[in-house]
Amino acid sequence: MAYEFSLRRRVEFAETDMAGIMHFSNFFRFMESAEAAFYRSLGFSIVKQVEGTGWPRVHAECDYASPLRFEDEVEVRLLVKEKRTRSISLLFKFLKMENGQEIVAARGAVTAVYITRSLDGALKATPIPEAFHQKVEAAPSDILGAWTK
Amino acid sequence: MAYEFSLRRRVEFAETDMAGIMHFSNFFRFMESAEAAFYRSLGFSIVKQVEGTGWPRVHAECDYASPLRFEDEVEVRLLVKEKRTRSISLLFKFLKMENGQEIVAARGAVTAVYITRSLDGALKATPIPEAFHQKVEAAPSDILGAWTK
Amino acid sequence: MAYEFSLRRRVEFAETDMAGIMHFSNFFRFMESAEAAFYRSLGFSIVKQVEGTGWPRVHAECDYASPLRFEDEVEVRLLVKEKRTRSISLLFKFLKMENGQEIVAARGAVTAVYITRSLDGALKATPIPEAFHQKVEAAPSDILGAWTK
Amino acid sequence: MAYEFSLRRRVEFAETDMAGIMHFSNFFRFMESAEAAFYRSLGFSIVKQVEGTGWPRVHAECDYASPLRFEDEVEVRLLVKEKRTRSISLLFKFLKMENGQEIVAARGAVTAVYITRSLDGALKATPIPEAFHQKVEAAPSDILGAWTK
Repeated sequence: MAYEFSLRRRVEFAETDMAGIMHFSNFFRFMESAEAAFYRSLGFSIVKQVEGTGWPRVHAECDYASPLRFEDEVEVRLLVKEKRTRSISLLFKFLKMENGQEIVAARGAVTAVYITRSLDGALKATPIPEAFHQKVEAAPSDILGAWTK
Repeated sequence: MAYEFSLRRRVEFAETDMAGIMHFSNFFRFMESAEAAFYRSLGFSIVKQVEGTGWPRVHAECDYASPLRFEDEVEVRLLVKEKRTRSISLLFKFLKMENGQEIVAARGAVTAVYITRSLDGALKATPIPEAFHQKVEAAPSDILGAWTK
Repeated sequence: MAYEFSLRRRVEFAETDMAGIMHFSNFFRFMESAEAAFYRSLGFSIVKQVEGTGWPRVHAECDYASPLRFEDEVEVRLLVKEKRTRSISLLFKFLKMENGQEIVAARGAVTAVYITRSLDGALKATPIPEAFHQKVEAAPSDILGAWTK
Repeated sequence: MAYEFSLRRRVEFAETDMAGIMHFSNFFRFMESAEAAFYRSLGFSIVKQVEGTGWPRVHAECDYASPLRFEDEVEVRLLVKEKRTRSISLLFKFLKMENGQEIVAARGAVTAVYITRSLDGALKATPIPEAFHQKVEAAPSDILGAWTK
């Protein structure tokens, strides 16, 4: 049973904006990359899931503490906050080295709902499959408590 | 004094993802577009502001109620929630027509801090200029109250 | 019968990069937006086309003469260069005002193939539908000749 | 002296479009990532280069042979085609495994000009620095000849 994951990534040139920092919307793409890599590490092919099912977001947020810049190496840490019948809530931390110290550049959260897609394209919330429940769990409360510090 | 704005936009093909809907990160780009158009409508050139100053985000969030699809026309409505010495908080609604009725596809919020940039690239929170205060104000409480319904 | 189209757009903040100019990849997204608006102006719903059919690119190119910057208003002009049984070739010009004069900021070209998609996701080149042929034609040779000047 | 480089990357969900494949504009971002990693491997910090100097593109093109899909692993291979006083031309190949065989999914080319940026933001083509010339060279003609096959 897994409830955490970590992904390392480097900020690309195309991810910066004219303010010289990573565009704030791209933090959400980094979160999604960590989430997909987390599921992949557990043997879930999201490709297969997407044909007819999927995980659209119902909520996403991010608090930005320190900007990321081109070529910065960042660690995106993921924690499963809560698992419900039809949805999952994930927390994220963006860690980078600054002056020899690891700092939290940003914190994020995402809630995604498991859906099936009808032939007409309509999305309907659906219970998360058993195979998923067997591999993914919410973090224990002490881990969750320590996370926010 | 202005506290609200509305921008119409159409979802582009490149803004969709393989789930057939607008990628969730692009809602944040639409919010930013509405914000820039709001300031532009008041005569502020953000280009000039960016040389040495800027509005990096410290918080961004979005609640997704209904997906946007390619070629959907959407109205992004902006409301100034709060103005402080060094920051501004904005609310957003994404409105679209569905079966002849206007529905709220998503709600967003952004807080941006006014900064000056040193020659070494460091960002420092700075009081919002007087010219800005003279044109932008927080929405009255009754408007704010009605917004969330 | 139509062979040209023009779209006006403004460069968004998220489309810039740390060099302070529109990222070169976004010129291709502007071309695609002009192409979609061209077809829309003729009554084609690309949404409907995409279910089972589509226009994947086989070639795309761009020559950059002058950078576009945040808030620049640009006119993306499209010309149908050639129409073949299964493909279409489009030319693009990016026009902007500079010092009171209209200049060509970039020139682009795209070739797209009409395809049908099998249930397994495979794409297969297919003759362009008759309804499309009745509305879209290649530009006359004198127009094409004048375009490149 | 180096004239080639290889970068491995996986297609992210946000890089796909509603046709279920990687959006064609993102191939150009992959090329740029390979280019930046190539320079980084030689000890060049492009970050430092960008303050006052840079490599804006004057030409970019891509030929698409086979679509890339979410989670596909792709190798982006770079070859220095030509080095001139103020510009460099690079070739790219996108390789992926399909049915146990490596295929060329796309081929690209980019020409970038070395520039200095005045205080008013204007860009001016400038001779490539000596340190760059000492590390980067054009591929020998036999390698170039074999590349296109």
